[in-house]
Amino acid sequence: MNIEMIRAAAARLKGHARATPLLNAPLLDDLAGRRIWVKPECLQLTGSFKFRGAWSALSALAPDVRSKGVIAFSSGNHAQGVALAAKMHGVPAVIIMPSDSPTLKIENTRAYGAEVVLYDRAGESREEIGDKLAQDRGLTLIKPYDEPQVIAGQGTTGLEIARQAAEQGIEKADVIVCCGGGGLTSGIALALEAEAPGLRVRTAEPEGFDDVARSLQSGQIERNARTSGNICDAIITPQPGEITFQIMQRLAGPGLVVSETEALQAMAHAFNRLKLVAEPGGAAALAAALFRSDQIEGDDVIVTISGGNVDAAMFIRALETLA
Amino acid sequence: MNIEMIRAAAARLKGHARATPLLNAPLLDDLAGRRIWVKPECLQLTGSFKFRGAWSALSALAPDVRSKGVIAFSSGNHAQGVALAAKMHGVPAVIIMPSDSPTLKIENTRAYGAEVVLYDRAGESREEIGDKLAQDRGLTLIKPYDEPQVIAGQGTTGLEIARQAAEQGIEKADVIVCCGGGGLTSGIALALEAEAPGLRVRTAEPEGFDDVARSLQSGQIERNARTSGNICDAIITPQPGEITFQIMQRLAGPGLVVSETEALQAMAHAFNRLKLVAEPGGAAALAAALFRSDQIEGDDVIVTISGGNVDAAMFIRALETLA
Repeated sequence: MNIEMIRAAAARLKGHARATPLLNAPLLDDLAGRRIWVKPECLQLTGSFKFRGAWSALSALAPDVRSKGVIAFSSGNHAQGVALAAKMHGVPAVIIMPSDSPTLKIENTRAYGAEVVLYDRAGESREEIGDKLAQDRGLTLIKPYDEPQVIAGQGTTGLEIARQAAEQGIEKADVIVCCGGGGLTSGIALALEAEAPGLRVRTAEPEGFDDVARSLQSGQIERNARTSGNICDAIITPQPGEITFQIMQRLAGPGLVVSETEALQAMAHAFNRLKLVAEPGGAAALAAALFRSDQIEGDDVIVTISGGNVDAAMFIRALETLA
Repeated sequence: MNIEMIRAAAARLKGHARATPLLNAPLLDDLAGRRIWVKPECLQLTGSFKFRGAWSALSALAPDVRSKGVIAFSSGNHAQGVALAAKMHGVPAVIIMPSDSPTLKIENTRAYGAEVVLYDRAGESREEIGDKLAQDRGLTLIKPYDEPQVIAGQGTTGLEIARQAAEQGIEKADVIVCCGGGGLTSGIALALEAEAPGLRVRTAEPEGFDDVARSLQSGQIERNARTSGNICDAIITPQPGEITFQIMQRLAGPGLVVSETEALQAMAHAFNRLKLVAEPGGAAALAAALFRSDQIEGDDVIVTISGGNVDAAMFIRALETLA
């Protein structure tokens, strides 16, 4: 796993994935007490950064392997990324999703042409279901984060941040990344190490699911006590990946932790000030920039809005925090 | 009023206004039956394209004139654009707004540092109030659309569309623009005439406020019967401007008209598929692309989302159309 893989992924993504802008909003700066720069991956194809990693992984497969199709486990954003990347490559995709995934994510995954297999989180083993399907049909598993070509794809976000920060004259800043398994965080970390060493990655996680923050502190992989029960569904993972943790341990600053209410409030500010739709997990980094400013240094902070796949009902909950 | 003024405005805007991307979403294409390309000016500074025209006009003033300050009449988006452009130029701004403007727009205009003077649409003359203030303080009036330097600023949107369409290989398409007084429409029309002659501007307006569509059809300026009472507040104007109508008459195709419900539905689709916050008037062009597809030709259509300054309550109304 190295910067050359990220650069190669960027070349493969060119013309297929979207280079997202780096946005800011004066009235948001006033709230945070420093300039906030937002990397809106909610504007990426499929509404989250996951399309980058999916395209990177699929485009790196040998054509005869890829043509048999791919399979993924995902509660939503990785599912949609793999589904659309497969469709654009003209190969079949099977996505195994928990039956309690947000409706929009299930519908969209199907709309992108994938076969969706739902399973019961409590009673069924997704690995068993997946292994059987993969063997029967010769499908290749696309892991959501602990996979070098996926990390390389997510890392292209970091190459863009490095270039865009330089254009704005930002030499030193924390780059806060919404963090589940660590694919986006570790990819961005590697890209910044090579291209913008004054920028340092930090993670944002929900309270009670701060496995990465605790792992970074203890120096070893820590698990969460629970595996569900938080509105930030996109970044709820049992523990950091093996590959991603090695990278984060070397390059990431202390992890930041936000509450569900703060994530909802950050969604409302993104609505008001940036005109962007963020999902709860995608708003965690913005929440950290807004509500943990005492734990951040410097005149500038860069945050990812990593996804925007949110049901109307949840978005309304966020808007109601404005009242 | 010519293309050189738009190119000069683009040079003045560089590094101050934002070059917005051109987005599309596969699932939105499926709905419309053709590829929809979205120019999201809701992502512009202040949440609408109006910042472009305001910056263009202010930056074109002689420094000793500009330093005395500027004044504008506006129900909202032009107000915010002028307020922030004035703040960034370090000069005072007075904005005269109807007292029934959306709360967010009034608050934001104040937050950008402008002095807001509210007036009662029914009982007071905004011109009288404005003339007195302008004379007393030596303020320069920045008109919202019928002003060459404002049109030149809005036209920079068209220069970007021309370049971005070429990058996507789009040679022939309708470019639907949310249209009030015609500043954005006529600016884009002039830019496309020079840079992308295969792209044709068309207007989108709300039912009952289709003065431009009727004016284009009759060949003379037509007025609306009403001047308020539609959720598309950003594009409710009594009639097209003199300068803007001359340009639109020469370059625009037949006008398109959408209902309030269609504008709300388009906002919901922008939420779902593009992760963008559109205000009702800013969603009119997308509504036309989605719901007037029989009046559009070709495999591609380009639409502006011209603004995103909407209160939470109105946005919730839009989301409820998804149910």
